[in-house]
Amino acid sequence: MHVHVNAATSVDGKLSSRRREQIKISGDNDFARVDEIRANSDAVLVGVGTVLADDPQLALDASKHVAAREARGESPHPARVVADSRARTPVDARILNDVAETYVLVSEAAPADRIDTLEAAGATVVVAGDERVSFPEAFESLEVEGVERLMVEGGGEVIFSLFSDELVDELTLYVGSMVIGGRDAPTLADGEGFTEQFPRLSLRDVERVDDGVLLTYDC
Amino acid sequence: MHVHVNAATSVDGKLSSRRREQIKISGDNDFARVDEIRANSDAVLVGVGTVLADDPQLALDASKHVAAREARGESPHPARVVADSRARTPVDARILNDVAETYVLVSEAAPADRIDTLEAAGATVVVAGDERVSFPEAFESLEVEGVERLMVEGGGEVIFSLFSDELVDELTLYVGSMVIGGRDAPTLADGEGFTEQFPRLSLRDVERVDDGVLLTYDC
Repeated sequence: MHVHVNAATSVDGKLSSRRREQIKISGDNDFARVDEIRANSDAVLVGVGTVLADDPQLALDASKHVAAREARGESPHPARVVADSRARTPVDARILNDVAETYVLVSEAAPADRIDTLEAAGATVVVAGDERVSFPEAFESLEVEGVERLMVEGGGEVIFSLFSDELVDELTLYVGSMVIGGRDAPTLADGEGFTEQFPRLSLRDVERVDDGVLLTYDC
Repeated sequence: MHVHVNAATSVDGKLSSRRREQIKISGDNDFARVDEIRANSDAVLVGVGTVLADDPQLALDASKHVAAREARGESPHPARVVADSRARTPVDARILNDVAETYVLVSEAAPADRIDTLEAAGATVVVAGDERVSFPEAFESLEVEGVERLMVEGGGEVIFSLFSDELVDELTLYVGSMVIGGRDAPTLADGEGFTEQFPRLSLRDVERVDDGVLLTYDC
């Protein structure tokens, strides 16, 4: 499976402010680029923190992408995937609507009644890991379901876990020309953090986009 | 006064790991660039957190820069400045050695005996602000002392305060091709963080340096 992490941060590495409200970091050209990566992915993954904070639908924006997917015999929109160890995704979350298929990755620690509720809401629940989602195991299940190209849109906890598990193949990072600040604001990679053997990336491309810069790395 | 913030972060905006140990983020070309900015500055500022974590001397590395300063009739090395609200700089800190002049910016809340100790160690103490250092006021005092070009080397608390006070004129940020991660690791701009009216910067230049990228902003 090819795992592509895409995110936009401020110059100080923040995905959002300490209030975790969505902030417009990039511009129209970057939005179009993100939509295109989504369109070329089989599924788009976010953490439950992002679902609870932003309630994203993760559907394609441009109808041309929907038409192109349908012409290729694919679903109109990529599948959605939520990393949600305790199955906390609310049943009225937009990510569970019927625009596309939804997978919820949970751990063995997820309450059975919550799993039942999510399945009744139409989600496919994948159980992997004891207390927290095991991404290597969950991704194997997604591959069996036909997910070969996975886009990851955050948040920082999920992205850190994926780097920690050495599952990231590609990172595109839009660095917006603004400062968000805040020792408690979410960053591109949160979690426990590395203290040695820091993952080294290879900078493939640097491009000015909108009023910021797009950095592309092979991981 | 021209205030130039220079820093190196990982792709996720971290200055260091959660252990606050120094990490080699950039390479030789970037080190040479930083030394040159120092050489062209009247003073170099860091926060006391950086002094306690790294014990930097903040002297010039290349002898050619020392010679050039002396030829211009300047001190061999730029002055050092510590932002240290409570006057916690240890007397044996390298930043207090006799390589260059040292200013310690403290607030009214700094204990008088600590101020006496720092002055006895050779530092010039500048009192500005009630509980925390007031940078606008402290910088006026530094200007009276002849500091027209101030370089700021961190950490994230000081840099956030300076953006908050709208005192930053220029930011050079080396983004190293590595992930540090960690929700508790220090970032380029920590502090309380902005929740609205985020400072907008103007991206002046983008340049590949070593295996990362150098971003230059006007602020």
